[in-house]
Amino acid sequence: MQTDRSVILYIAVSLDGYIASLNDDLNFLDLVQKDGEDYGYADFIKTIDTVIIGRKTYDWVIKQVSYFPHADLNTFVITHQKRPTLGRTEFYSGNLKELILNLKSQQGKNIFCDGGAEVVNELLKYNLVDEFILSVTPILLGSGKRLFGDGRPEQKLLLINTKQFETGLVQLHYQVTN
Amino acid sequence: MQTDRSVILYIAVSLDGYIASLNDDLNFLDLVQKDGEDYGYADFIKTIDTVIIGRKTYDWVIKQVSYFPHADLNTFVITHQKRPTLGRTEFYSGNLKELILNLKSQQGKNIFCDGGAEVVNELLKYNLVDEFILSVTPILLGSGKRLFGDGRPEQKLLLINTKQFETGLVQLHYQVTN
Repeated sequence: MQTDRSVILYIAVSLDGYIASLNDDLNFLDLVQKDGEDYGYADFIKTIDTVIIGRKTYDWVIKQVSYFPHADLNTFVITHQKRPTLGRTEFYSGNLKELILNLKSQQGKNIFCDGGAEVVNELLKYNLVDEFILSVTPILLGSGKRLFGDGRPEQKLLLINTKQFETGLVQLHYQVTN
Repeated sequence: MQTDRSVILYIAVSLDGYIASLNDDLNFLDLVQKDGEDYGYADFIKTIDTVIIGRKTYDWVIKQVSYFPHADLNTFVITHQKRPTLGRTEFYSGNLKELILNLKSQQGKNIFCDGGAEVVNELLKYNLVDEFILSVTPILLGSGKRLFGDGRPEQKLLLINTKQFETGLVQLHYQVTN
C-alpha cells in the first residue's frame, strides 16, 4: 500500500534550463543571494525527512562544504558502487523505482530529490516525481548541465503556485497530474 | 545610430523547455486554450510593427492555417534560399545581425521574434534579443524542439514581471541587462 508521501524536486535552474555550468559550478546562484532570503527553503525542509541524491552531486557537495548538509535526514545516495553507510546516509545501488515505492509504502514526511540531473531524469523516466519546485534564476547560462534531458515521458502538471522575489528569482510549484 | 526599438522573443514553451514536439506539433498548447484569454497577445502585437521568423516556421504556419497571420506587418523570413517578396513579407538570406542593426537604426515599433529555434539561437548567439516574454505551459513534453540550444553566450536578465493565469500558464517577462 502506498502512503501520500510525495517525491519533490526542489532545485534552482537558469531560465534556459541549466542547473550548473559545464564545469559544475553554481556561481549563477550568487545572482540571487540575499541576506535573510532563503526562498522558502527552511519551510520546505521541515516537510521532508528523506533525501535522494546522486553520487556525483553528493561528492561535489562534500568537496565544496566538507560536510553533508542533510546528514540529519534519511539520505539515499544513488550510486553504482556501494560504500559503507554513514549514520543516516546510505549508498544505494539497487533499483531506483523499487526504492521510491518502498519509501512510499512507509509512513513518513515527503522525499526531497536534491539532484543531480542523472537521478532527476531517471526518476522522471518512471514518473516518480510528484511535485516540482523550480527556482528560476534570471540568467541565460548559455550552456551547462541541463535539468531536463531528452527522451522522458510526457507529464501534465497542475500549477500550485508562483512566487516572484525581489532578486528576480521566480519560484514555480507544480504537481504531476497523470 | 540605434533607436530604442527592442527585439522581443514572445513564445510559448513547456516547463522542460520545448517549443514543439519532435514532429513539430503544438498540441501541448491546447492545454491552455481558453475562450477570451489571449495571454496579452493582442496588447503585445500593438507594440510591434516588424516580425522576424525562420523559414521553416513560416512554411509550417502557412501549412497549418493557409495564410500568414502577420502579413500586415513588416516581416522578414530568414532563409538560405531567396523567394520573391509577398506584400510586406520579405525573404531575407543576408546576415541576421546586419538586419537587426539596420532595423534598429530606423524609427519604428518593437521587433517580434516569432521563432523557430534556429533563428532564436542565432539571435541569442549575437546578443540580439532584448526582451523575453515566455509563456510557460504546465506540461513536461519529455522531448521535442528545444527553445534554447547549447553553446550560447551567458546573458544576465532583469525580471520585469510574472503573470499567473487560471489555466496554469505562467508568463515570465525579462529584459537583457548585459
